Amino acid sequence: MSGTTLDDYTDLYAQRVHGMKASEIRALFSVANRPEVVSLAGGSPFTAALPLDAIGDLVAELIRREGAPALNYTGGQGELALREQICAVMAEEGIDASGGASPDDVVVTTGSQQALDLVSRVFLDPGDVVLAEAPSYVGALGVFQAAQADVVHVSMDDDGLVPAALEQAIAAVAASGRRAKFLYTVPAFHNPAGVTLAEERREQILEICQRHRLLVLEDNPYGLLGFEQDPPAPLRARAREGVLYLGTFSKTFAAGVRLGWILAPHAVREKLVMASEAAILCPATFNQRIVARYFATMPWRDQLKVFQELYRERRDATLSTLDEAMPAGVSWTRPAGGFYIWVTLPESLDSKAMMPRAINARVAYVPGTGFYADGSGARHMRLSYCFPPPDRLREGVRRLGRVIEEELTLRSTFGATGSAGVPRRVTGDVPPGIA
Amino acid sequence: MSGTTLDDYTDLYAQRVHGMKASEIRALFSVANRPEVVSLAGGSPFTAALPLDAIGDLVAELIRREGAPALNYTGGQGELALREQICAVMAEEGIDASGGASPDDVVVTTGSQQALDLVSRVFLDPGDVVLAEAPSYVGALGVFQAAQADVVHVSMDDDGLVPAALEQAIAAVAASGRRAKFLYTVPAFHNPAGVTLAEERREQILEICQRHRLLVLEDNPYGLLGFEQDPPAPLRARAREGVLYLGTFSKTFAAGVRLGWILAPHAVREKLVMASEAAILCPATFNQRIVARYFATMPWRDQLKVFQELYRERRDATLSTLDEAMPAGVSWTRPAGGFYIWVTLPESLDSKAMMPRAINARVAYVPGTGFYADGSGARHMRLSYCFPPPDRLREGVRRLGRVIEEELTLRSTFGATGSAGVPRRVTGDVPPGIA
Repeated sequence: MSGTTLDDYTDLYAQRVHGMKASEIRALFSVANRPEVVSLAGGSPFTAALPLDAIGDLVAELIRREGAPALNYTGGQGELALREQICAVMAEEGIDASGGASPDDVVVTTGSQQALDLVSRVFLDPGDVVLAEAPSYVGALGVFQAAQADVVHVSMDDDGLVPAALEQAIAAVAASGRRAKFLYTVPAFHNPAGVTLAEERREQILEICQRHRLLVLEDNPYGLLGFEQDPPAPLRARAREGVLYLGTFSKTFAAGVRLGWILAPHAVREKLVMASEAAILCPATFNQRIVARYFATMPWRDQLKVFQELYRERRDATLSTLDEAMPAGVSWTRPAGGFYIWVTLPESLDSKAMMPRAINARVAYVPGTGFYADGSGARHMRLSYCFPPPDRLREGVRRLGRVIEEELTLRSTFGATGSAGVPRRVTGDVPPGIA
Repeated sequence: MSGTTLDDYTDLYAQRVHGMKASEIRALFSVANRPEVVSLAGGSPFTAALPLDAIGDLVAELIRREGAPALNYTGGQGELALREQICAVMAEEGIDASGGASPDDVVVTTGSQQALDLVSRVFLDPGDVVLAEAPSYVGALGVFQAAQADVVHVSMDDDGLVPAALEQAIAAVAASGRRAKFLYTVPAFHNPAGVTLAEERREQILEICQRHRLLVLEDNPYGLLGFEQDPPAPLRARAREGVLYLGTFSKTFAAGVRLGWILAPHAVREKLVMASEAAILCPATFNQRIVARYFATMPWRDQLKVFQELYRERRDATLSTLDEAMPAGVSWTRPAGGFYIWVTLPESLDSKAMMPRAINARVAYVPGTGFYADGSGARHMRLSYCFPPPDRLREGVRRLGRVIEEELTLRSTFGATGSAGVPRRVTGDVPPGIA
């Protein structure tokens, strides 16, 4: 067992580990965090806009009044007081008691990431298929691949997931003799695509899934962050069975408390609680009580308006600068809420190959390849406008425009110099702050 | 997908779910939490002994001074400031830089439970064998079984794991054509057995494991809670390779912040971080900063002495009442630290079958069967003295003595009435607060 080789444990690892690779872009991200770089990469909410003094008072009082139980273990499902607040938040989006949403069917998780993990543990055997939008949230792809499932992407357009493409994907999976267990979808203000599933498609998608006995895993971190209007009602507001709904406090309150939830059909809820007890015993009691009290006693709807206004201004700054600064042939989505813009480059360009040059020009983004299980997506990149202030966003987009321009000039002078878009596993490809 | 059956999703679940069963004793535990019941069941630390006012001030100041980053995402490995404090805590037990312990090789987890889960993900394929003490911590058994591994128990005595029994178990597993990936062990103040691995056995155990290329998963939640003296140095203090060391803040600070750690050989550490990012993105930043500041600025060694004294007094109250109140034929361990006493009943008794009658007599414990992967252990029970004050402990033990006495009278009058010790899966058998 003693030894000096780099990894003496290789023959002991589980099968699933052999697909894990350290992220190729992780090293770049540590550079991207240098202050002189404008990072359009991370998905960190702007927590400085929270009423920190009031939260400090709330937490101090909570510790003095009920510190002993707040600092101890509680049940694996999560505390009732928090699950009641979760139901209040979901009601804001149309998921309420009339549709069967009850605190009893909520499982509190360590952020939505653990929710994705628990659902995968309960439903996915190695070789199972998950259908997911193309592109899809990088963290979800990582979970599905850690579960040794295969992701089959389904096309999107500006109105979100394309129903006919979903039908085709289901048929293709069935024809290959395999089984799709669920559709993973982010219908509102998609990460990374920035688009929203149109009202008229929502019933269609549900009908298709129900007809094929395909569960829907609806991930909705951004639904309350609409800038002009609310998105159409979530899928879970339209169907009480067959939908597992994921919510999070990371964007409405604070990512650093790591609290999210699953609203699940009753029978499934029980399995999820057992899986969570095996994974973490219970979600942090302390954090649960802080969030429950924040939502019970502080003006969280007003705070949501603060966030909406803040992110709307940043989106506007980013979009208007894209209009000014991007060379011809570059296109992008125009999100009506959430954190992200999805950029498509001219065909000759490769966003991952370009990344070192962008960082050299002091701007960072996430290359599109991370959002495809098959390593495609090299023509795309995700820009986040959630964290830097508007001036920095404008500066970052201008720098990016110049980088792309130089790339195009290089390409037209010397021709394409090869692509870095080699297919690879996504597992482990989640850099800090990409959520 | 619509329907009124209890569980419409059965055909969609992953294989691993079919072994999960709701705990048979879970319903009893909700009753056991009624105030009139003395619970000797839970493993909750006595958090009321913490300096709550000072912690409240510390947290409030932290939120005011650095609330924005504390409430946001950070890296998957955990923050450096906390990993440095973790190294200070480990040095207290003899695991230090001279033995290769470095903040760079620490992975912060959502309690030790997540540490167990991450190690299982990285090392266990379905059908792999884990060696574990007989009995073993119920939460660890749940994780191994969720990973579809088989647990092979190894005998203990009052000096902990028996080296010859370990040799035999390794040989038996090899003879069956399977592979044991690691030995899971709690060498100090064992949960549930209350015993400590003797000094002279520690090198033997390490030698055996190294010779057979068996990883050691050393779980040490209680090592700093010795009542008369410190336990022998941990296995990790004696071997820098081949040992994965798990620590937790649940017993030295607070279980409700859900923070623990893994100290791992460097190559393994990298895999664990990737697995953790897939599971939870990052441990709660907020909690990490609170704990880092508590350990950096408050007299945590003095607080440890407070805990040691408090639990020593409770152990003494429990042991002396056991001496007075238990009928002949009942035996128990005499822990020198930690939270637990392991009781062995006369052969005719079954602790699980007896549980409803005990609760009726207003005392609760954990039946021994939960601590064996094969469902044996019906003659045993775990008593925890960590949470109730001494008077309540004495009253609880006296009640338990009377229940056992009545059972013995019944048995001698009517003969044994059958055992409830049916072999079953342990997964999902972790009631709230059993840690």
